[in-house]
Amino acid sequence: MGNRRFTADAVVTCDADDSVFAPGVVDTVNGRIAWVGPADSAPVVDDTVPVEDIGGLLMPGLVNAHCHTPMTLMRGSGDGLPLHRWLTEAMWPREGRMTREDAWWGMTLGSAEMLLAGVTTSCEMYLFEEEVVDAVRESGARLVMTPGVVSALHSSGSDRAAEISDFFSRYHDPSGRVTVGIAPHSAYDLGVAAVVEFAELARSLDTVLHVHLAETREESTELEDAYGHSITRILHDHGVFDGRVLAAHCVWVDAADMELLAANGVAVAHCPVSNMKLGSGIAPLAAMREAGVTVGYGTDGPASNDSLDLWEEVKVAALLAKVHALDSTVISATESLAMATRYSAAAVGLDDTGFLAPGNALDMIRIDLEQSTFVPMTDTDELLAHLAWSGSSREVTDVWVAGDKVVAGGEVLSIDTERAIAEVRQRALRLARG
Amino acid sequence: MGNRRFTADAVVTCDADDSVFAPGVVDTVNGRIAWVGPADSAPVVDDTVPVEDIGGLLMPGLVNAHCHTPMTLMRGSGDGLPLHRWLTEAMWPREGRMTREDAWWGMTLGSAEMLLAGVTTSCEMYLFEEEVVDAVRESGARLVMTPGVVSALHSSGSDRAAEISDFFSRYHDPSGRVTVGIAPHSAYDLGVAAVVEFAELARSLDTVLHVHLAETREESTELEDAYGHSITRILHDHGVFDGRVLAAHCVWVDAADMELLAANGVAVAHCPVSNMKLGSGIAPLAAMREAGVTVGYGTDGPASNDSLDLWEEVKVAALLAKVHALDSTVISATESLAMATRYSAAAVGLDDTGFLAPGNALDMIRIDLEQSTFVPMTDTDELLAHLAWSGSSREVTDVWVAGDKVVAGGEVLSIDTERAIAEVRQRALRLARG
Repeated sequence: MGNRRFTADAVVTCDADDSVFAPGVVDTVNGRIAWVGPADSAPVVDDTVPVEDIGGLLMPGLVNAHCHTPMTLMRGSGDGLPLHRWLTEAMWPREGRMTREDAWWGMTLGSAEMLLAGVTTSCEMYLFEEEVVDAVRESGARLVMTPGVVSALHSSGSDRAAEISDFFSRYHDPSGRVTVGIAPHSAYDLGVAAVVEFAELARSLDTVLHVHLAETREESTELEDAYGHSITRILHDHGVFDGRVLAAHCVWVDAADMELLAANGVAVAHCPVSNMKLGSGIAPLAAMREAGVTVGYGTDGPASNDSLDLWEEVKVAALLAKVHALDSTVISATESLAMATRYSAAAVGLDDTGFLAPGNALDMIRIDLEQSTFVPMTDTDELLAHLAWSGSSREVTDVWVAGDKVVAGGEVLSIDTERAIAEVRQRALRLARG
Repeated sequence: MGNRRFTADAVVTCDADDSVFAPGVVDTVNGRIAWVGPADSAPVVDDTVPVEDIGGLLMPGLVNAHCHTPMTLMRGSGDGLPLHRWLTEAMWPREGRMTREDAWWGMTLGSAEMLLAGVTTSCEMYLFEEEVVDAVRESGARLVMTPGVVSALHSSGSDRAAEISDFFSRYHDPSGRVTVGIAPHSAYDLGVAAVVEFAELARSLDTVLHVHLAETREESTELEDAYGHSITRILHDHGVFDGRVLAAHCVWVDAADMELLAANGVAVAHCPVSNMKLGSGIAPLAAMREAGVTVGYGTDGPASNDSLDLWEEVKVAALLAKVHALDSTVISATESLAMATRYSAAAVGLDDTGFLAPGNALDMIRIDLEQSTFVPMTDTDELLAHLAWSGSSREVTDVWVAGDKVVAGGEVLSIDTERAIAEVRQRALRLARG
């Protein structure tokens, strides 16, 4: 990949300084960023370095911190049913019929949608881990694969632990595009003891434990009654938070729970669109941020969203926080962009993506600034407002992952999207009809 | 325009039966719908009638029930400021510098955005009513123009009433594309007496009174303290609801207020994205519907949204209602689509648009069903789910208003969008700098 220089009308770094350089420069070498800054102070490079004046806006790729992407196969199924009937009548029967090949195609279609939206990394909690890895490798995206553990399928925790350990040893590659974590579904599904065991396994492998936590008001009532504490405190008291933990949802957490999350470095994958669609509740985003919790954004599965375009979360998360607080000033455009990028990356255990800085992977996207929803633009504050409130897959024209171009001119280079659409259409019919 | 037949893979009528015909037929004559129904029972037509096999999905154009569209000129300005500072430091100074030509270009750019999103009608509450009408006429869209009355500019209510009466007599044309209503800003801005006077004028002209009502918790406190009632009851008790009324927002209404709205046929323009962004509050959508209130959707001004793509309201309104009620079953996909179409049309006083039925105007849009976000589609319930949760301007390919094609292949035929972008960019700079 060698050296290369990109010049753009604007570069939004999403680093800790939230820098905006307009115009800006990104220098790269061998799939990593060498320098990023304002055009007028860019280092002199010799004639052999190709310079691409790409126009538009460059920023880091987005990171989807919580997803079950193969569920593209069930998008729209059972729409409008109450939660329990939706699961038992629409989701689980279809998942029960799903083959490895189905999962591969479901993941492939979802990967295409995410790349087209500028989502360069997703953290997947799902079964069929071999197929998910294979599909994402072919797509060129970055992946944090956290193989799921659910009570209905894994009555023997130790067998599944052995499978996951083996999978980890074969695929976990922090210097490459795939890392591996572990995803026991939840304490209410598996019991506290099983979550503790998988948390110990995750610690022994020095990797991320990914677990659903406090998504609905009712789910953990039984455990909370038994222990006399909130589910968050129960997990804390059992040492689950001693390692690196990514907790999805955290809708029903109180101030004491938030303190526990912050003090123990537990990261939260906030999934506002899914929480709204399923009527789960409003997670206290502004309060979690105030308490010092690292919060990233997730779409959750495409069957409960129904989109994989993380730009929706950028807008909806901030707006939901504002109306929840009755305060338009909480969760600014800049802060919401940070949660979709660097905070999401940190939440899923990656430290070299999610912001543009020297040494980081070149996971980068280009935004077309000529769209009328980005008009007018009288200063950089308006630029950031437009990104946060009007950004969408529409404006993403080019995407690089680890320096490789995977989307060009709004087309995914690595995936036959038409074929993936046709496969998912046909396979979904079979899953629906049994 | 003569006779013409459209055949499509699906026709979604958004009529009171919420019919879906797949495949379906729409027959038209002279800009009106002659027949709509399933392809296999379409009436025989003779060889002279052109038949266009248009594929995709046909449905009524969306209706934006509450908007201040020329505010495209201020989109993004003062983003993140608290409400009062946003108004006094960012909005009002720019509006104070706005010329008639500025308003024309702001409206023109917004019209382009709405048409591209399949919004065929908007109900505008703004000043510069002549320019708004002229711009929308050129765009080919349908318009309900409700000239605004605000205390800062209209110290003499009677002068403004005379202006509006004159404007009404020149432009109100129920058989054409422009109707005219009257928009006193609010009781908290103008006082109750002024709202009553303009309500009487609206009644005398047999047209719609368009007024902001109960948007924020604080705005009407003074009046409510003085009268000992909610602002909704104050307006009711003063006879404001005796005519046709479109009340924008209605965030802070209780059960008794909703009963008053329903019993008096007051329609509500629900603007969830704006209410969220400004931190105003969550309007009780499910409860208003339950009480029998006619509710349509509005984007509000593009400076507080920041989009004119009413598909966002289709998704966000339903999802916000679900999470507000902690119940995933309230406000179904079908119901949310109805609120963006036939209920919005009824709310703004139009009875021959917003649904596909014989005799109605041919205000119709075509949706591309080949997008991956519409995949899979195993039954018509999934089709409606995809429309509601994944619909956006991306999928709108063609738009007709009163039988005239105004958007073809995703391009507005009637507006030089590039010129409008350039004009708004340049004019916004002047408005920002003074």
